[in-house]
Amino acid sequence: MTKPMTFTLSEDERPTSWYNIVADLPVPPPPPLHPGTHQPVGPDDLSALFPPELIAQEVSTERWIEIPEAVQEIYAQYRPAPLIRARKWEEKLGTGARIYVKYEGVSPAGSHKVNTSVPQAYYNKINGINRLTTETGAGQWGTALAYACSLFDMECEVWQVGHSFDTKPQRRTLIEVFGGKVHRSPSRMTESGKAFPEDHPGSLGIAISEAVELAAQDEGAKYALGSVLNHVLLHQTVIGQEAVLQLAKAGESGADLVIGCAGGGSNLAGLIFPFLRENLVEGKTARLVAVEPASCPTMTRGQYAYDFGDTAGLTPLMKMYTLGHDFVPSKIHAGGLRYHGMAPLVSHVVHEGLVEAVALEQDECFAAAVEFARTQGIVAAPESAHALAQARREALAAKEAGTEPVIVVGLSGYGLLELGAFDSYLKGNMSGDSLSDEDLAASLAGIPEIRV
Amino acid sequence: MTKPMTFTLSEDERPTSWYNIVADLPVPPPPPLHPGTHQPVGPDDLSALFPPELIAQEVSTERWIEIPEAVQEIYAQYRPAPLIRARKWEEKLGTGARIYVKYEGVSPAGSHKVNTSVPQAYYNKINGINRLTTETGAGQWGTALAYACSLFDMECEVWQVGHSFDTKPQRRTLIEVFGGKVHRSPSRMTESGKAFPEDHPGSLGIAISEAVELAAQDEGAKYALGSVLNHVLLHQTVIGQEAVLQLAKAGESGADLVIGCAGGGSNLAGLIFPFLRENLVEGKTARLVAVEPASCPTMTRGQYAYDFGDTAGLTPLMKMYTLGHDFVPSKIHAGGLRYHGMAPLVSHVVHEGLVEAVALEQDECFAAAVEFARTQGIVAAPESAHALAQARREALAAKEAGTEPVIVVGLSGYGLLELGAFDSYLKGNMSGDSLSDEDLAASLAGIPEIRV
Repeated sequence: MTKPMTFTLSEDERPTSWYNIVADLPVPPPPPLHPGTHQPVGPDDLSALFPPELIAQEVSTERWIEIPEAVQEIYAQYRPAPLIRARKWEEKLGTGARIYVKYEGVSPAGSHKVNTSVPQAYYNKINGINRLTTETGAGQWGTALAYACSLFDMECEVWQVGHSFDTKPQRRTLIEVFGGKVHRSPSRMTESGKAFPEDHPGSLGIAISEAVELAAQDEGAKYALGSVLNHVLLHQTVIGQEAVLQLAKAGESGADLVIGCAGGGSNLAGLIFPFLRENLVEGKTARLVAVEPASCPTMTRGQYAYDFGDTAGLTPLMKMYTLGHDFVPSKIHAGGLRYHGMAPLVSHVVHEGLVEAVALEQDECFAAAVEFARTQGIVAAPESAHALAQARREALAAKEAGTEPVIVVGLSGYGLLELGAFDSYLKGNMSGDSLSDEDLAASLAGIPEIRV
Repeated sequence: MTKPMTFTLSEDERPTSWYNIVADLPVPPPPPLHPGTHQPVGPDDLSALFPPELIAQEVSTERWIEIPEAVQEIYAQYRPAPLIRARKWEEKLGTGARIYVKYEGVSPAGSHKVNTSVPQAYYNKINGINRLTTETGAGQWGTALAYACSLFDMECEVWQVGHSFDTKPQRRTLIEVFGGKVHRSPSRMTESGKAFPEDHPGSLGIAISEAVELAAQDEGAKYALGSVLNHVLLHQTVIGQEAVLQLAKAGESGADLVIGCAGGGSNLAGLIFPFLRENLVEGKTARLVAVEPASCPTMTRGQYAYDFGDTAGLTPLMKMYTLGHDFVPSKIHAGGLRYHGMAPLVSHVVHEGLVEAVALEQDECFAAAVEFARTQGIVAAPESAHALAQARREALAAKEAGTEPVIVVGLSGYGLLELGAFDSYLKGNMSGDSLSDEDLAASLAGIPEIRV
């Protein structure tokens, strides 16, 4: 019998609740503020956009929140996502690190995003909503929401960031295969979009403004967000809960290092919060590392301040690491990491020193992804490549230091629709992409001054 | 606890041998013939192209052939492939059929092809071969071989059918990500290629001729074929062996119907041969159905005759269903099904009446694939879509007949790199594509007359 390489869970080991980190945090996170009054927002302020169950989750301090049966049934189609011992990559690296990859690319839409699109569609549906609007950057969130809407017989309308729309027609087709409708953002359908020229490359901030604007106008429609908010992060905690159990099945007493990429923060939070729980509650000491791109260095070079989640200033003000809400990132290939802010909960745990943050340039990330593909056979999304590159660094550093850590790497999705970016990398067409000091300063100047 | 939807196997249930159908066939299949002498080929005739272990497997009559430990280790990275109860699709269809999908798209290269590329690379490597040449149609075989070669530190050179090369740059990039080198076929590097104009759309037959020609010239190189031959079909039997066991885990006493698409025949054989064994040895009565495209109707409208496997006539003559070895198929999207012949073993069991064959037009196949995506979240390869469409037909027919069959459908891979074809379908740009009687007659005229 060969050594097992993939670890799964039996039916009765699958998570039946989402984990809410707020219940275990030593310091409570700062509340979101109303964009007009600068007072903490109440549930009523959110009801134009979200159904009551999601609002309750957004502000909940309960530790465990039960996953509805209908959602568990759909999770059961593709979860548990495999935890893969990356032995072939380990051999190539030649270090003593034991590297486990938690792979979300097996999900219907090819990324972790389905973990939250399904419950979001479900809660809207049971509240009589039949149309959801949203934004998408890399396209993975739009794909995931379109699929979830098709399951519940709902309409799905997606504003895709212009640059992504222009360069990734396959992604648009995939959303359409799942029954969704795609608009290039900035579009001419909203005031938020019309504020920009039609050929503008767009940004997640603009696309969010457009989707929010339309949902607010239509009684039967709501808006769905793919990251950043507490309830979105909550849904993703199935990832880390599974990984904790799978790691035990692999015979490990725990992780020394858990690494994930961070754009809006939901993939990272979903993976690390259950490990952070072990640190906070069980006295474990895993290092938790968030990796962001050097071109959009929210946590490593941004400010921890109240700012808007979108460009037009329609969303509540959130205390978070931000580059300023009118930041327009360079056209780096990891579209899912091109967001000016960071989930308030992730920002909070980074600010509290519970989680580390690093920024990497994309050349190094693609190099790691190609090495990983040639050994493990999985083509990681450019976003996930950031986590791989950091894992590579850590494994090599551990070898220098004479240690043999257990490293868990979050692979949020596949890169099969981003092969154009891999082509650029293989042809040597990628260059350094750090954000310049001038651009950073200009962008930070746009952060509103809020006194609380 | 929710009802399980995916069925897997424990470590000690994984197949450790490949299954050789030849051992259980009531009538032995006709031997391949030397292209010059028309005498049965011996092992020596094949040694320029293949290493001894693969030649031994090609002519073996042993029932079980052990899978080398090194190969089992790599299989363990992604196998067992999931057997998925397609409940959401069942609900949509509204029939009483219980539909199980055996999904090979989770493999490194995204299709079943890795099941044979890995052992082929392995056997070549242990015989001192460091370079493999091959052809690829849809691109899945080239991808799978490139990955296998990267695992064993070998060079991989792929002749991609011209039309596929021109319309699917992502596929070429994916092969390159795995370290392979891609040439458009017909190329200017071989005599076989130069016989055609440079902008010719190509065919699998031409691409095979090119790869064979180059391998025969280089002492350190061998050729690897992705389908058709006995040893390739043999390696694929892990699919059906797993499915038989998984079906039992799902609580079914057996399958009423097993359906797979057939291009060269390896995916189909891998799935159905273990079920055919149950029919032959255990007295079971599952209907086994091969689905081919109406534009390349090898089994349903071709002749059962000796013909060449390639266009240039370099390969042995094989008794098989064939449209004639100079058949150039229309540019249908299911590139993997555009082959003029059919695996001799598959042809034999169809000819003996042990397996049925049907031909479908692509509109119906894409319609089924879109319905499947919107319910199950998996975008099937256009090839696999043929199996889905037939399963749909069978489920609806069973409802008419008042039966509730257990249907196993082979999903040989994902269609994520074929979204251009889905786009055409969604835009209504697909039309009927049956092979005309004139084109069929012209092509059949090219079959050599062989008296045995």
